[in-house]
Amino acid sequence: MTIQTPYYLIDKAGLLRNLEIIRRVREQSGAKLLLALKCFATWSVFDLMNQYLDGTTSSSLYEVRLGREKFGGETHAYSVAYADHEIDEVVSHADKIIFNSLGQFARFADRAVGVQRGLRLNPGVSSSSFDLADPARPFSRLGEWDANRVRPFMDRIDGFMIHNNCENGDFGLFDAMLGQIEERFGDLLAQVKWVSLGGGIHFTGEGYNVDAFCARLKKFAQDYGVQVYLEPGEAAITRSTTLEVSVLDILDNGKQLAIVDASVEAHMLDLLIYRQHAKVEPDAGPHPYMVCGKSCLAGDIFGEFRFEKELAVGDRISFQDAAGYTMVKKNWFNGVKMPSIAIRELDGEVRLVRAFGYDDFAAALS
Amino acid sequence: MTIQTPYYLIDKAGLLRNLEIIRRVREQSGAKLLLALKCFATWSVFDLMNQYLDGTTSSSLYEVRLGREKFGGETHAYSVAYADHEIDEVVSHADKIIFNSLGQFARFADRAVGVQRGLRLNPGVSSSSFDLADPARPFSRLGEWDANRVRPFMDRIDGFMIHNNCENGDFGLFDAMLGQIEERFGDLLAQVKWVSLGGGIHFTGEGYNVDAFCARLKKFAQDYGVQVYLEPGEAAITRSTTLEVSVLDILDNGKQLAIVDASVEAHMLDLLIYRQHAKVEPDAGPHPYMVCGKSCLAGDIFGEFRFEKELAVGDRISFQDAAGYTMVKKNWFNGVKMPSIAIRELDGEVRLVRAFGYDDFAAALS
Repeated sequence: MTIQTPYYLIDKAGLLRNLEIIRRVREQSGAKLLLALKCFATWSVFDLMNQYLDGTTSSSLYEVRLGREKFGGETHAYSVAYADHEIDEVVSHADKIIFNSLGQFARFADRAVGVQRGLRLNPGVSSSSFDLADPARPFSRLGEWDANRVRPFMDRIDGFMIHNNCENGDFGLFDAMLGQIEERFGDLLAQVKWVSLGGGIHFTGEGYNVDAFCARLKKFAQDYGVQVYLEPGEAAITRSTTLEVSVLDILDNGKQLAIVDASVEAHMLDLLIYRQHAKVEPDAGPHPYMVCGKSCLAGDIFGEFRFEKELAVGDRISFQDAAGYTMVKKNWFNGVKMPSIAIRELDGEVRLVRAFGYDDFAAALS
Repeated sequence: MTIQTPYYLIDKAGLLRNLEIIRRVREQSGAKLLLALKCFATWSVFDLMNQYLDGTTSSSLYEVRLGREKFGGETHAYSVAYADHEIDEVVSHADKIIFNSLGQFARFADRAVGVQRGLRLNPGVSSSSFDLADPARPFSRLGEWDANRVRPFMDRIDGFMIHNNCENGDFGLFDAMLGQIEERFGDLLAQVKWVSLGGGIHFTGEGYNVDAFCARLKKFAQDYGVQVYLEPGEAAITRSTTLEVSVLDILDNGKQLAIVDASVEAHMLDLLIYRQHAKVEPDAGPHPYMVCGKSCLAGDIFGEFRFEKELAVGDRISFQDAAGYTMVKKNWFNGVKMPSIAIRELDGEVRLVRAFGYDDFAAALS
């Protein structure tokens, strides 16, 4: 089947590579693993993912509902802040609800009936190299920093969530930061039933020391008598998905430029926010091009890549690693056609699961 | 009527202030003015705007269709690059089609039947202080730079578009850059019927020298024998709209923090991309707060503002100037509820025109 570009192509075999490592971590460490929907929420592949993950975690009412309805398993609710009018519905979809602050805990704990109640802690250290994404940045609003403030609530707190890793592919750094967490919050950790260590740990990446990671998690669980949770986002979907685009125009403005039928800002937003480049493989050959998007933004640039042959209008380019924080953030900037979503099944068949059209664009406004 | 936050509130009286200046510029300069849909495309207020503007300009197939169907008047089509499969439909909705490159012009001019054909020129100077948004940045793909390359096409080119202003509130700078354009492309300008000078000119801002602006446009039109077009985006909608939010939580993490029920990244994206702050009025008083969004992003911060009273959960905050590049870029990051869209009519009545729910969120994925 021929699908018109642009489209995101999710390869289930690519997912499976990550999911097998996830299964190994579950078995070897005893931790439970939940998909972080904020990173990836394309529910058409949940039928595969929910065979390998224990459930989902969320950052809003709509995400927790999506997790409950489309994924199943254990459903964790977290949000930086819930509104009064949504808390009952959040609770109705959740097994555990994790509050971001003691203020939110105090406000809503009594309405969290029949579910476990947790609190986010902020250890004041993180692995993030981006201030924007650093939960330990000065004056961070993400979680409680002060053990003394938390202590009076301990009789009502069932568990903690700590999320301070960010694309951390260095087990040594994870290990060291977990040590700092133990030092800072150890006495509190020993008083609860479960601790979620969040996401951002790149344990499905090449060369990651999975054995050491599992051993560390297992020891942590034993030392404090807790069930450990992990909340992989990127780690669950890395290298599974491409954004498939076509060349629409070639220009020579001092460099060879290729314009493609997608947009960084509309379709791979994090590249713009973090001033990063897309990936093209093999990115080798005698012909360099700056590959640009078709929005009006001057900086709508996917990156500079090398190609084996000269590019021509109609040629296909695949941007690699296009699953994380892309589909969940796509938008209608410039009215550029949103990429469709397609899935390559395990038998190789490619199936179009969603296409967007003019009516979707017009309905996004009013 | 009480509308649940968050919502964008478009005030028609605020629009009218800008539209009256637009009418004056049209009358006094002889220029035609087109709304730039890339900045603002909330079509529920087009019934007011199309009484004051000549039509719309666009940056994609979907925008040109929206302009034709919802706004009417003159409909300009422009895109950084059109695809083969969309060009006929683009032409069917357009009065003029402006190509970004000679490559696109050569490819599609013969299919632009019955409409005027234009080309984007790039004068190599701009008023942008952001590299990201600077159409004259090195290796820019936006328009043709070299008059010698354009000359052989002059028998088929009906007009030009030049867009190199960006939030330019300085008439002197506009005037100087127009002089540079005349120097660089004067002989070409004299050979066409119309010239669009694009958008980014902040002529509805306070203190802008509208008389001098109109006189300059009129002289330009006379000197080259052209119909001048302007394509206001921000200038048409500035100070017309607020994003209405409610405080969900108050934290003290070294600073007083207020968490609100919206998100910079999801609902006022340019603040994040350009590392800017929202506006709150009057932004005065003895109580300073850092006002933060409710997404998981550590840097989801609207800014630091001063308030007359201490903030409490449930308090309302209005972010000013929330029309431009907001609703057209909103997205479902974190599954945070998208702000509804409401309009304050000229008689003061507030009307909800669009609300978004869980089904919209789930349907944005698949």
